[in-house]
Amino acid sequence: MTEQRSRPVRYADAGVDIDAADATVRRFAEIATRTRRPEVLSGIGAFAGLFRLGEGYRDPVLVASADGVGTKLLVGAAMDRFDTVGHDLVNHCVNDILALGARPLFFLDYLATADLPQERRVEVVAGIGTACEQNGVALLGGETADMPDLYRDGDYDLAGFIVGVVERDEVIDGARIEAGDALIALPANGLQTNGYSLVRELWAIGKGLGADHDRQVLDERYEELGGSLGDALLAVHPSYLAALEPVLRRLRGIAHITGGGITGNLPRIFPEGLGAEIDRSSWQPLPIFELIQRTGDVEDAEMFRTFNMGAGIIVATAEADAGVVLEAVPGAWRIGRVVERGPDDPPVRGLEG
Amino acid sequence: MTEQRSRPVRYADAGVDIDAADATVRRFAEIATRTRRPEVLSGIGAFAGLFRLGEGYRDPVLVASADGVGTKLLVGAAMDRFDTVGHDLVNHCVNDILALGARPLFFLDYLATADLPQERRVEVVAGIGTACEQNGVALLGGETADMPDLYRDGDYDLAGFIVGVVERDEVIDGARIEAGDALIALPANGLQTNGYSLVRELWAIGKGLGADHDRQVLDERYEELGGSLGDALLAVHPSYLAALEPVLRRLRGIAHITGGGITGNLPRIFPEGLGAEIDRSSWQPLPIFELIQRTGDVEDAEMFRTFNMGAGIIVATAEADAGVVLEAVPGAWRIGRVVERGPDDPPVRGLEG
Repeated sequence: MTEQRSRPVRYADAGVDIDAADATVRRFAEIATRTRRPEVLSGIGAFAGLFRLGEGYRDPVLVASADGVGTKLLVGAAMDRFDTVGHDLVNHCVNDILALGARPLFFLDYLATADLPQERRVEVVAGIGTACEQNGVALLGGETADMPDLYRDGDYDLAGFIVGVVERDEVIDGARIEAGDALIALPANGLQTNGYSLVRELWAIGKGLGADHDRQVLDERYEELGGSLGDALLAVHPSYLAALEPVLRRLRGIAHITGGGITGNLPRIFPEGLGAEIDRSSWQPLPIFELIQRTGDVEDAEMFRTFNMGAGIIVATAEADAGVVLEAVPGAWRIGRVVERGPDDPPVRGLEG
Repeated sequence: MTEQRSRPVRYADAGVDIDAADATVRRFAEIATRTRRPEVLSGIGAFAGLFRLGEGYRDPVLVASADGVGTKLLVGAAMDRFDTVGHDLVNHCVNDILALGARPLFFLDYLATADLPQERRVEVVAGIGTACEQNGVALLGGETADMPDLYRDGDYDLAGFIVGVVERDEVIDGARIEAGDALIALPANGLQTNGYSLVRELWAIGKGLGADHDRQVLDERYEELGGSLGDALLAVHPSYLAALEPVLRRLRGIAHITGGGITGNLPRIFPEGLGAEIDRSSWQPLPIFELIQRTGDVEDAEMFRTFNMGAGIIVATAEADAGVVLEAVPGAWRIGRVVERGPDDPPVRGLEG
């Protein structure tokens, strides 16, 4: 059934070079070493990472999340940038567990590709490592998957897994939110990690028109962006950990504004019968969103359910605490308030006009 | 720079249908509910999963691993099977943390695709859910990433992330292994999740020759396999948790034989100065490996550093405990012993003959 082969088959023939992969894994280990926390048990754990929880917790709840960075990967690759996606990934994950009030403990990555050069892989993981350092998270492990025939030349995918911890009675779950509470937004610096497929559709990026086309589109400078489209699109998803940690105890709900925008994410924190009234005049969407909307003639509602529109995180706090939070968190602004919501009311009002 | 568009752009135009994805996510939630453990805090945790560690641990060490199933995915897709890869993934992850002596607590998945139909996605996650139930692991969360233009039609990637726990003084790290210890193997039932790129190279599966070609190759029946090539290749990676749990305290080292085979994985558990002497006559490699070797004229050494060759896990135990372990673990056999290793000795001897 199979033709005779003239020479013995080695795994490397199939596109998997175990020796080269081993060398890269050793470099990954060096990167991970820089993120070491005291709880990481070193020298052991070849098949998995070990993290000693330690004493000092009364009733610890582990908080875990899995995430990717979407097709921001394709935009980065088109710009020959592999050092920023790791930051996007780690910060996104940190924010997702922060939304429950958790501090991050450790992170693992999954990097899959057919043929991404070893040097590129190291750049990606180095970005992850630096972001882990910045957030105080241990890079505990990861998997590099060689997947010939699944990914196209130079393509790769990247996923992250994070585990954090919060005391059970300090979980921020929205349950204490009341009508009249203040909604306070923290600024985004761009698309974060959502909406890239729509943007790529608009400018035909990563659509097979070739590297030159993509690069030309991304290098185009726009006055309102103060730079190129590509640089605006690659702005790194910020971590909100440092900004929110000092005021966590004053927060009743935290919504990370990711895929689905304010429309899709803010309602996730409200108890039954409550919703949000957003004051659209309280901020000006970032120029990148105005450029996207104009270029694609995208409807307002679609913009708000696709992009964060400049609000990276929205927190709910008792009106009495609003002043302290606004003062403590750089760039924060009052974006609206919590209101009673009838069965026929939309969960978020005020985005339409 | 961009041509005028005749109608407003919606996110669905870019290949991302948020409503359909939301419906699938609700079905994922139903699947996850079936894996619920008492420690999972329900009703909250929209942005991340919450798992209460609880009391009863003296000095808990969290053990975490990230993994994929490699291009076994492509073989499954070629056979139109989407229900088994979840089992492969969960069981692989369970074994990886079991190798440190840990019991699994919770699992998260990352599923990425451009256009895998929603029904297929549910099949994949249902497989994950069933395997989680079988291993007593909570499916705590996951991410479904819509990645237009990154994945080809019908393709997808899948990664898993597991967290388990072990008391610090019960971590199985190989440190207590001594020369003279017994090496005991647990049977594999096929390739588990490694070596698929080589196999696909041999039979040109997933190489662009078309679905009909791939299906014909995979449907071919072989007498020595007792069935089709495809069925042999899709044999589910077993979990060794139930088999090893009763004897964990008698084990000094556990090597999960994954990518790199016995050659690459067994040495990971040995302290400096120790190695393995394997008795090749102690078992007969599974027929699927003989078929692969014959078909590709693959050298012995390459086979042993690519495939598990029938040994799914190898444990090290004091000679005095070997009898109990052999008796307690179904299908286990004595595969070799731990020996002194000089600086010029290979870490594993006996595979060549």
